[in-house]
Amino acid sequence: MKLYKIAVLPGDGIGPEVTKEAVKVLNKLSEIDSRFYFETKEFNWNSEYYLQHRRMMPENGLEQLKKFDAILFGAIGDPRVPDPVSIWELILPIRKQFQQYVNLRPIKLLRGLENPLKQEVPVDFVIIRENSEGEYINSGGLMFEGEKREMAVHNTVMTRQGIRNIAEFAYEYARENGLSKLTNATKSNVMSYTMTFWDQVVEEVAAQNKNIAYEKYYIDALAAYFVQRPESFHIVLASNLFGDILSDLGSAIVGGLGIAPSGNINPKGTFPSMFEPVHGSAPNIAGKGIANPMAQIWSAALMLDHLGRKDLHDAILRSIEEVLMEKKVLTPDIGGNASTVEVGNAIISKL
Amino acid sequence: MKLYKIAVLPGDGIGPEVTKEAVKVLNKLSEIDSRFYFETKEFNWNSEYYLQHRRMMPENGLEQLKKFDAILFGAIGDPRVPDPVSIWELILPIRKQFQQYVNLRPIKLLRGLENPLKQEVPVDFVIIRENSEGEYINSGGLMFEGEKREMAVHNTVMTRQGIRNIAEFAYEYARENGLSKLTNATKSNVMSYTMTFWDQVVEEVAAQNKNIAYEKYYIDALAAYFVQRPESFHIVLASNLFGDILSDLGSAIVGGLGIAPSGNINPKGTFPSMFEPVHGSAPNIAGKGIANPMAQIWSAALMLDHLGRKDLHDAILRSIEEVLMEKKVLTPDIGGNASTVEVGNAIISKL
Ligand SMILES: CC(C)[C@H](C(=O)O)[C@@H](O)C(=O)O
Ligand SMILES: CC(C)[C@H](C(=O)O)[C@@H](O)C(=O)O
Repeated sequence: MKLYKIAVLPGDGIGPEVTKEAVKVLNKLSEIDSRFYFETKEFNWNSEYYLQHRRMMPENGLEQLKKFDAILFGAIGDPRVPDPVSIWELILPIRKQFQQYVNLRPIKLLRGLENPLKQEVPVDFVIIRENSEGEYINSGGLMFEGEKREMAVHNTVMTRQGIRNIAEFAYEYARENGLSKLTNATKSNVMSYTMTFWDQVVEEVAAQNKNIAYEKYYIDALAAYFVQRPESFHIVLASNLFGDILSDLGSAIVGGLGIAPSGNINPKGTFPSMFEPVHGSAPNIAGKGIANPMAQIWSAALMLDHLGRKDLHDAILRSIEEVLMEKKVLTPDIGGNASTVEVGNAIISKL
Repeated sequence: MKLYKIAVLPGDGIGPEVTKEAVKVLNKLSEIDSRFYFETKEFNWNSEYYLQHRRMMPENGLEQLKKFDAILFGAIGDPRVPDPVSIWELILPIRKQFQQYVNLRPIKLLRGLENPLKQEVPVDFVIIRENSEGEYINSGGLMFEGEKREMAVHNTVMTRQGIRNIAEFAYEYARENGLSKLTNATKSNVMSYTMTFWDQVVEEVAAQNKNIAYEKYYIDALAAYFVQRPESFHIVLASNLFGDILSDLGSAIVGGLGIAPSGNINPKGTFPSMFEPVHGSAPNIAGKGIANPMAQIWSAALMLDHLGRKDLHDAILRSIEEVLMEKKVLTPDIGGNASTVEVGNAIISKL
């Protein structure tokens, strides 16, 4: 019997409120499934920690996390700490150093939810976002400070290995899930170094997967198509920044950020993967007990799927859908007036 | 009496079809308004030209264009010419060398059009996009070609002067048009060199305009808000790439790319400004006579506004709206079955 060790990083703002519900769901699952054992350890590495220690995690933070099977992450961000600090010292080091080069983001209209579009279309696709390089490289600088000619430079770096890794993952995902089309998000008409290279490497992998249809759109047009025909996508493959933008946009057409989950995945299993909602710490509603825990709970479900328990993933998703379909216990972001805890309990009661 | 000299660059694909209708509109206006004189000169600098001359325009192309009061541009892009070539040798040199550092893109739900959202909200804002630097800098390179370690680099460059220029334009635009809020599109949580600098300079200008509310969102969240509450924006100030993405997305919530106009503006008047639809050359429908000419005609209206004839701008927009409200003569992209020429004629008949 495998005992799963899960590191829980609740983070800031609504993070602790929603991770608490996700852990309750895991507890309930282990109660009803005698084959599911897990233990959690909580790490309070957040902005509060930063204010005390002037760093977002201890020096051996990654060393500590390494031993876990997976990481459940809430959200980070606090008005008292500059965002680049909390992000570049906590989330991004975990994503990068644990080689979580895939960011998997389902854009799926759950049963019981309506999309905001007049045209009632089924939406069910996945964004596969490169998660280790590209536009998310902390390279650049500020020059001639205080002078009229002051300027800033930022470097985007894309490697053959990085692009190939994500493209191969995307095609493998397509094959395993019987998906018949891949859409490449690009801007090679303007970024003629990086994005042309991106297209080239993606198309090398596409050429080895001829039975899966391939299409390519410029990111600007693609953003419009997300609104105009979201039903037409199966897999959208995107760079780090484009995937970031498209996934928030995608969430808006399937119920909003209160629902959208994500997995930061190390497909080779050399380091733990991390699961977190797409939403942030939402300081404006923190402490009010009204944050929607569904994104976090769905993220925990993705974690279980990653750990080999697709059955438990499916059970969670079904429970979320039942709660959505009943429309009785919903948080304000999706038109209800229930609390975070009530929604957590409602989902648990369906398991 | 001023004689306006207008350079017309129809370009590729549907470009010539729609610019023809826009010029017909201008002709009609000069017929009915004895104070409006103009002459056009057409330049066939397009992909066909490239195939013959291996360049997108003659060596003295910009020199030739310089003498005009404004440029009416169709669209560029043809399967036989790599997009980076047609773009970096034609559109972008004009935008950059003519110091058209403002890209003005109205996102306005015209009367007679429905938005695709269930929630019927009025949408009327403007995207002010930095148009001369930022992510649209052709700096970078491909390294270690053919090797495993092959990689590409792209550099984003933002200057104090560039950011200040666009921010000052945006605030001036807000004051002149009585707009009470400016929304800054950023990603300073991740791009800590360029976007942090962007925010800083924008906020310096904001501090001098305290009577205009200022807000700032990360581009990912902002893309979601475009769908969730498009009625809440007045001016969205964005970098070159973010403005590009947001304007296509914005167009999708107010009728699509067949309608969306844009102005590439040199506010100092040192070089001509250029007016072009947001849509591309649409090779898939080129030659069929079904492209929507409204985006191009509205772009011509923006040109007239820029040339000091707001009255003619308003007259064109009113005519477009009348045609939309009658719902009789519409192209297929907005649910009709009329031709490009028929829509052009219908608009002219309302002037
Ligand atoms: C918090 C931030 C660094 C992050 C990102 O930009 O990747 C977030 O927006 C996300 O999508 O996970
Ligand atoms: C054609 C292309 C260079 C252009 C851009 O990216 O600016 C287009 O998408 C636009 O928005 O005008």
